[in-house]
Amino acid sequence: MKEKRDLKIQAIENGTVIDHIKAGQALNVLRILGISSAFRATISFVMNALGVRGKKDVVKIEGKELSVEELNRIALISPKATINIIRDFEVVQKNSVVLPSYVEGVVRCINSNCISNSREPIKSRFSVLQAEDEGVTLHCLYCEHVILEDIAENLL
Amino acid sequence: MKEKRDLKIQAIENGTVIDHIKAGQALNVLRILGISSAFRATISFVMNALGVRGKKDVVKIEGKELSVEELNRIALISPKATINIIRDFEVVQKNSVVLPSYVEGVVRCINSNCISNSREPIKSRFSVLQAEDEGVTLHCLYCEHVILEDIAENLL
Repeated sequence: MKEKRDLKIQAIENGTVIDHIKAGQALNVLRILGISSAFRATISFVMNALGVRGKKDVVKIEGKELSVEELNRIALISPKATINIIRDFEVVQKNSVVLPSYVEGVVRCINSNCISNSREPIKSRFSVLQAEDEGVTLHCLYCEHVILEDIAENLL
Repeated sequence: MKEKRDLKIQAIENGTVIDHIKAGQALNVLRILGISSAFRATISFVMNALGVRGKKDVVKIEGKELSVEELNRIALISPKATINIIRDFEVVQKNSVVLPSYVEGVVRCINSNCISNSREPIKSRFSVLQAEDEGVTLHCLYCEHVILEDIAENLL
């Protein structure tokens, strides 16, 4: 029996397609969106798919449009992602995520002695810089620590 | 622009298609297989897809065949899953998972006072029963506690 070379998966009627996600980050995108086993709508994803410009991930979610907070978090881990809003099977909107220049209360500082990790009610604050590739750098505005990788692991 | 009703995703050349996974359990299957952001091969999945017999999940993994331990864990959370082995785009083998009648060191007992949760070097031991639907019941052979749900959350 032949494994179909083009496996067809359901398109979505209403919802969001997140395309051009940095390869390997799809599971983190699901985490950002709070998607667990309890989620009842249709979701599909491809991780490390071979696209025209190299490997990428794609996530499709039925019946969900993303909040600004969710978009900002996705931008931090995948600044070249695109967001397609689908209504009645039509792409009604196609945008790129925009990397915020500043984030507050979104990422945990990796410096355990940073005041934002103390018991004080102080939210973490970072300035955000983008490298030419898909790299994102966070600079802590309290302790000046720099986060180059592991942003996904430190999302609050 | 039309969202294509049949989105095509890459078929796999060599690897495994896990079909008829209990709806919602695909993320737990990925967890059982140790798949994280660091995984470099192509993976796709659909969660809550509308199949002929109701909702199901499907996972496709390039370049991986499953071990007996992985198959047993998948059977516990999704006893009706089928495993298709793909080689050179051909389905060379199609099997159902088999629910083990007994598991040792696979699931944590939910009774915190169970001897298998003590500091003693004692592996958890359960007998396994399947209900008519997709439900699986575990009976602890030490403390007689029964696990009806949350098997996925308690996998070791």
